[in-house]
Amino acid sequence: MSKPEKFNYTSPSGFDIEFLPGEKRLEQQFLDTMRRVFELYGFTPIETPAVERLEVLQAKGQQGDNIIYGISPLVANAESGEADRALKFDQTVPLAAYIARHLNDLIFPFARYQMDMVFRGERAKAGRYRQFRQCDIDIVGRGKLDLLYDAQMPAIIAEIFTQLNIGKFQIRINNRKILTGFFTAIGIAPALAKTCINIVDELDKIGGAKVQAELEKIGAASQAQQIMDFTQIQGSPDEILTKLQGMFPAASEFQTGVAELTAVIAGVRSLGVAPDNFCIDLSIARGLGYYTGTVYETTLLGYESLGSICSGGRYAELVGLFAGEDMPGVGISIGLTRLIKNLLKEKIVTALPQSPARVMVLNLDNQLMPSYLKLAQQLRQAGIATINNFEASKMGDQLKKAEKLGIEIAIIQGSIEQTENRCQIKVLATRQQQDVPVAELAATVQSLLGKVD
Amino acid sequence: MSKPEKFNYTSPSGFDIEFLPGEKRLEQQFLDTMRRVFELYGFTPIETPAVERLEVLQAKGQQGDNIIYGISPLVANAESGEADRALKFDQTVPLAAYIARHLNDLIFPFARYQMDMVFRGERAKAGRYRQFRQCDIDIVGRGKLDLLYDAQMPAIIAEIFTQLNIGKFQIRINNRKILTGFFTAIGIAPALAKTCINIVDELDKIGGAKVQAELEKIGAASQAQQIMDFTQIQGSPDEILTKLQGMFPAASEFQTGVAELTAVIAGVRSLGVAPDNFCIDLSIARGLGYYTGTVYETTLLGYESLGSICSGGRYAELVGLFAGEDMPGVGISIGLTRLIKNLLKEKIVTALPQSPARVMVLNLDNQLMPSYLKLAQQLRQAGIATINNFEASKMGDQLKKAEKLGIEIAIIQGSIEQTENRCQIKVLATRQQQDVPVAELAATVQSLLGKVD
Repeated sequence: MSKPEKFNYTSPSGFDIEFLPGEKRLEQQFLDTMRRVFELYGFTPIETPAVERLEVLQAKGQQGDNIIYGISPLVANAESGEADRALKFDQTVPLAAYIARHLNDLIFPFARYQMDMVFRGERAKAGRYRQFRQCDIDIVGRGKLDLLYDAQMPAIIAEIFTQLNIGKFQIRINNRKILTGFFTAIGIAPALAKTCINIVDELDKIGGAKVQAELEKIGAASQAQQIMDFTQIQGSPDEILTKLQGMFPAASEFQTGVAELTAVIAGVRSLGVAPDNFCIDLSIARGLGYYTGTVYETTLLGYESLGSICSGGRYAELVGLFAGEDMPGVGISIGLTRLIKNLLKEKIVTALPQSPARVMVLNLDNQLMPSYLKLAQQLRQAGIATINNFEASKMGDQLKKAEKLGIEIAIIQGSIEQTENRCQIKVLATRQQQDVPVAELAATVQSLLGKVD
Repeated sequence: MSKPEKFNYTSPSGFDIEFLPGEKRLEQQFLDTMRRVFELYGFTPIETPAVERLEVLQAKGQQGDNIIYGISPLVANAESGEADRALKFDQTVPLAAYIARHLNDLIFPFARYQMDMVFRGERAKAGRYRQFRQCDIDIVGRGKLDLLYDAQMPAIIAEIFTQLNIGKFQIRINNRKILTGFFTAIGIAPALAKTCINIVDELDKIGGAKVQAELEKIGAASQAQQIMDFTQIQGSPDEILTKLQGMFPAASEFQTGVAELTAVIAGVRSLGVAPDNFCIDLSIARGLGYYTGTVYETTLLGYESLGSICSGGRYAELVGLFAGEDMPGVGISIGLTRLIKNLLKEKIVTALPQSPARVMVLNLDNQLMPSYLKLAQQLRQAGIATINNFEASKMGDQLKKAEKLGIEIAIIQGSIEQTENRCQIKVLATRQQQDVPVAELAATVQSLLGKVD
């Protein structure tokens, strides 16, 4: 090949999201686990196009404009409307559009999961991606949606993170009505509630005096202590619920929130979620303009700086936006690209080997290739991922290559063995080798791999 | 909810690719099958970002410009280069970039599969999508790549389409060197070869006189009969190879092609591909400027109008483009979105039910909900996808809803059964019902579902 032109083949800033093969295999395991759990609970997959009409993406208002990527053909064509296409920035607005597009073909409550890519044209920043995989589940009702769906979400989160086996985690549960009810009861406008909570949230970092000062700035000086006391109520779910039931008895939104939270916690218990894996956290707010009831965050214990690794909640209106109906829903979301990048960085997980193959048939003699091909096929037919080494090289080099790829077993056959219809099975980890009739190859390898697992 | 604004929430033209849930579940089965087979042969997953630098996508020349979508933030930001981002239009150029980006972390030959979305800003046309899932596998060597990798591809194609069980198929194999060798030998420039083949390909439709006239137009009148005779050579692979071995003995490229094809066919046989599933077809050309050796197309017999459902071949230079090395490769590609849309349209496959759940726990009495939640969890812990029906309604309505969702078994428990720690299992297809102790629920359902399968 002649000297190539020099291209800048690096990924554009913010799109440096691709994994090495062994990391991608790990992501695939995560996706498999999530999918298995989602489906166990009856969630069905959907996938919406990456591209929607701009007006659909802007339907919640133009506040998303600073993160929306528009697309347009390099070579303009004559079709109208091409300028008004854009890349989706979340899975929720597309879900609303999907439901409207297929309203009569869907059965409600509609429980779906979706694990594809979203795009955000934000300023590049360390750890902020412009494309990432967002794994969402939502269940959406027409007109109403039972509160017990809210109780299922922590059960699903707990099942996923238990199976992913990435460490201790805690699902923090709250109810938005409790928060707005509380702030109303102490004389703070709901619009300021989130700001107040964010300020109080900094207590450990900035100290009480600074928190007091910040709250004063937004006119909440006199309620500062009350807010700090409230958001930091500690205890078992029952202790907290008992405390809440005794507070603001006349504040109906507050008490509705307490009753909802009580029912959700009871459901979470009936579903068998381990007590260590969930708690009530009255400082959890999420997007208050969006969520209307239960809200969730999930913390990986010991890695709190990673932020919430799975969040969500109950909302009233968003999903019915295009269908023009009340469609309450409850959902959770996992930012998978960021999670896996962080887990790798923190060495909580390690990448798998490059190759999914577990067995390599070595090449000792090109003349025996037809036999090597057949040995590999026998293994594949038994469901064992196998590669042939077609490249002729010293056996030691072939074994080294096999180990680098992550291969566990090498199959060795010379011309005498081939004539006798036998072959050698070598377990790479132990270097133990055994001689078997070709007819017994797959069964023997199967049993050795069973032991390796 | 107040009367909504009217939005045009339809998918933009060419992006109407989304599936209903039961269709998406079918696509998921296809993806699982492909992935299983790819991994059996040691192919590892990768996924590249949807967005690359424009210069990367244009590296093969600007001929792709009329299908490239550029992206840019709606609200321009100050970062440089934002204008030069574009959506990938195939998986090959990104593979070349991926290999260059990770050259030192990959083990060669590098065998990867990739099943994500590509984007083409082409004019909208029936059956032509602007976003679609393209499933590619390629194996790429540094400097050289054994011809036996070419023989593996038909084995992989055959395994996939056998497992997908969508009907009889035939993999048509040819070698580009045979074609260019042939055209050179009869005095036609290689640049005209593809045009000649396309013209001859229309023989059945337009008749011999028209073919003759078209060939005359491009200056190939005197070779018309020769071309028709050659591309229509019929017979078993051995018959065709024998014929070819006797033709143009002095044309070295032609004879190299024949020798390669002979070796590939021998490999395909050693790998046990059924004789019905492959043939030599000398009219298969693919992109002649791109492929340099073996080429493949796959026909679904009886549905030839769908075109090739899996194509590919051997190439010399493309993948080493950015790394600046010779990197020969061989690969195949399945346009999955189009394939599934076509299979559904032709009723070769049917969509699955909406829900992946196989069991529904009915709601006879809201008071018993804690028990219903536990019944559902018992089933899920046994790996059985289960939903609760939280909505209270008549049992008949609940059963109807279950059937619509695709549920196979309903679990029924009234207050007496609950007290006695028993429940009813109802198989929806047969309406047969049995009463079991709660402790035996999962095992009994498991065995009933085994029978249902």
